[in-house]
Amino acid sequence: MENLKILLSEKDIPHSWYNLSADLPFRLPPPINPATKKPLEKKDLSAIFPDVLIEQEVSQKKWIEIPAQIRDIYRLWRPTPLRRARRLERFLKTKARIYYKDESVSPTGSHKTNTAVAQAYYNKKAGIKRLATETGAGQWGAALSFACNVFSLGCRVYMVKVSFHQKPFRKSLMHMWGSEVIASPSSLTESGRRILKEDPHCQGSLGIAISEAVEDAARNKDTNYSLGSVLNHVLLHQTVIGLELKKQLRIAGEKPDYLIACVGGGSNFGGIALPFIKEKIKNDKLQIIAVEPSACPSLTKGKYCYDFGDTAMLTPLLKMFTLGHNFIPAGIHAGGLRYHGCSPLVSALASKEIIQSRAYHQIEVFKAAVIFAQTEGIVPAPETAHAIKAAIDIAKNDNKEKCIVLNFSGHGFLDLSSYDKFLSGELKNYAHPLKAIKNALKDLPKFS
Amino acid sequence: MENLKILLSEKDIPHSWYNLSADLPFRLPPPINPATKKPLEKKDLSAIFPDVLIEQEVSQKKWIEIPAQIRDIYRLWRPTPLRRARRLERFLKTKARIYYKDESVSPTGSHKTNTAVAQAYYNKKAGIKRLATETGAGQWGAALSFACNVFSLGCRVYMVKVSFHQKPFRKSLMHMWGSEVIASPSSLTESGRRILKEDPHCQGSLGIAISEAVEDAARNKDTNYSLGSVLNHVLLHQTVIGLELKKQLRIAGEKPDYLIACVGGGSNFGGIALPFIKEKIKNDKLQIIAVEPSACPSLTKGKYCYDFGDTAMLTPLLKMFTLGHNFIPAGIHAGGLRYHGCSPLVSALASKEIIQSRAYHQIEVFKAAVIFAQTEGIVPAPETAHAIKAAIDIAKNDNKEKCIVLNFSGHGFLDLSSYDKFLSGELKNYAHPLKAIKNALKDLPKFS
Repeated sequence: MENLKILLSEKDIPHSWYNLSADLPFRLPPPINPATKKPLEKKDLSAIFPDVLIEQEVSQKKWIEIPAQIRDIYRLWRPTPLRRARRLERFLKTKARIYYKDESVSPTGSHKTNTAVAQAYYNKKAGIKRLATETGAGQWGAALSFACNVFSLGCRVYMVKVSFHQKPFRKSLMHMWGSEVIASPSSLTESGRRILKEDPHCQGSLGIAISEAVEDAARNKDTNYSLGSVLNHVLLHQTVIGLELKKQLRIAGEKPDYLIACVGGGSNFGGIALPFIKEKIKNDKLQIIAVEPSACPSLTKGKYCYDFGDTAMLTPLLKMFTLGHNFIPAGIHAGGLRYHGCSPLVSALASKEIIQSRAYHQIEVFKAAVIFAQTEGIVPAPETAHAIKAAIDIAKNDNKEKCIVLNFSGHGFLDLSSYDKFLSGELKNYAHPLKAIKNALKDLPKFS
Repeated sequence: MENLKILLSEKDIPHSWYNLSADLPFRLPPPINPATKKPLEKKDLSAIFPDVLIEQEVSQKKWIEIPAQIRDIYRLWRPTPLRRARRLERFLKTKARIYYKDESVSPTGSHKTNTAVAQAYYNKKAGIKRLATETGAGQWGAALSFACNVFSLGCRVYMVKVSFHQKPFRKSLMHMWGSEVIASPSSLTESGRRILKEDPHCQGSLGIAISEAVEDAARNKDTNYSLGSVLNHVLLHQTVIGLELKKQLRIAGEKPDYLIACVGGGSNFGGIALPFIKEKIKNDKLQIIAVEPSACPSLTKGKYCYDFGDTAMLTPLLKMFTLGHNFIPAGIHAGGLRYHGCSPLVSALASKEIIQSRAYHQIEVFKAAVIFAQTEGIVPAPETAHAIKAAIDIAKNDNKEKCIVLNFSGHGFLDLSSYDKFLSGELKNYAHPLKAIKNALKDLPKFS
């Protein structure tokens, strides 16, 4: 019997993060300061980020060393296993070999912990006392709470209201690690109050929660802001996933034909994909696929242009695939994918067709998730299940001994109420939000 | 940096289970048929168990081979990691070295899957179509549901009513794997109806749920009964834990001074402890400690005598530490430890003082659990937290470079509502149930 799990030892935890920007054959369009309409300067960010992270955001160094204190915490769960989905393959009667990189083994159950630990560490080192952040499904909020607890930092999490109610147990985790959790939009910030005035029943969105957290950080001198996705330094920290994966594939004697991950802001996708982009540019046979929900299809239906990262227009302008910063996605259960935009780095790769994208409705995604839970035994997070759905489709359609690798970004132990709804037939799909996107795209900032 | 995780490869999964009965310097008192008052014969059990499991129950073979089909499923998560709790040690400022054998990495989040897979396999092979079982907190029900799904068996789970409501998400897992879940006491069985007639608001207990499941199996020809703890064959299957641990301790260059596990029916305790008993009998320095809740203290306050395994007096009489089969424990959150009795094998070891026991109230247990979650990052199940509490106490009191190993029987991702109650100060301790025990012990069967 061949091994189902390809395990590395702790000395195989990468010593450096991989910075794709340094290796790209083109330059990323810079973030723009909306006031000056000029490229953002480092000082524009210093009210909310520590210097080291601002450096990492714009760095052109190919390898950035991971401090020993961060690797020490990574050791609690890293390296993560690469697993062969043998029982899923047999169920599908496919000749494809399906692997999944299991990021769900982290303390908080998802890949988010990789950057949370790094961000908390650098903020602590910079003398910051408290972090403010947003969270969708709660995976990021839980991860940052864990990391802040490790480094004795305070933490306030603005949690998208629909998830605050749908996912009470990620909130419990945040409380366990000492964070304060606020349903967003809230009345604690100017941005929140403005939105509640317009719509007191607003269910929130990542864009709104980001506005509240940024405002909180900008107002309080001892507080910084921490983002769980989208930005270059976040994706940088996630490259430990792809770097470990490369070693594991070498051990398995595999070269991937498909790399698949779900995409919201782009951090788990970036984590697995970025270390493979250079060889993808040289080798057209590798397909790298970003999978998003049909209810929030920024890569497949959005526009590639400059837009705000948040709803209240507090952030710099980022060149990215966007549905418009006013677009509020339907309340799908994959809360972590409910973001109007997408990482500028991932967006640039998509605009140059180096990576591909596809979108699925939530019922077909949950069907795939249950097949996975029944065959492999692990319950996926609804976000992760998007990648599983794509992998299953590809394994069925391209039945030619291909090697498919997906990023198993998180488990679904805290999403079981969503599964209850699916299993009892209560779950519904949402119509393609074409009209809402068209409307939201009207509000794009003039700079484009 | 030394390794925090001691990992084995799949070829290290044990090829045989270890049967302590064959190695004991004394004979276990046999189960008694309550009708004849004579030692139970194999045929007395054949209405509810397949022959192979009945053989294992009474076997005197020291090693029992694990079929390849079971090892194939074990590979999904086994061998489980042995982890060094470095950050907990530092927090406690102890010189002790604390390790935990992490059974929470199984598909269903606990050690229960080890025997569930074996039992489902043997029942399937015997031509059985459907299993009936009971569950407390739901860890056993989820594990058996997973295993029945793997081997295409039907499954009905009688779930203790207090947990059915407190732990809705283990129920979701059971549904995910295709099981039917019934709140016990139910009106589907004679035993359930009798109890509901006496007390329509009865919150249930493992003893009652066992009665219902046994009755279901006895009545339906295509249905067998499956028990998640207590019996010899169940503990036998769990010895993979201790057998792997021995290899891992050898790699770490450690000899344990303390082995600690929580105890309800005794299966996770037996799993870690039984492979060490022979050397314990020779080496008095090793202490093996069973930890139970003060609300259900069978080993520390019970009587060692023959009693029924269930409330409706349907099972054989087992010689064990018991609080009386009519004892219904308070609704503590460690639902898996709410059992009036204890494995006859573990009870015999306790009666001969080969192992020790201690009991804790739930608030101090939850305090220990939160310390563990904050230092090690993993949220323990409330059951598991009993072992953690004992390990912390010992590390504080015996501060002499001792090696402490605990069985991390399961994670608490599905117990977060209990943590919410603890963190918000709503959790209460229950008074020592001395009077209730005294009353229940009056109802012991005449045979003793």
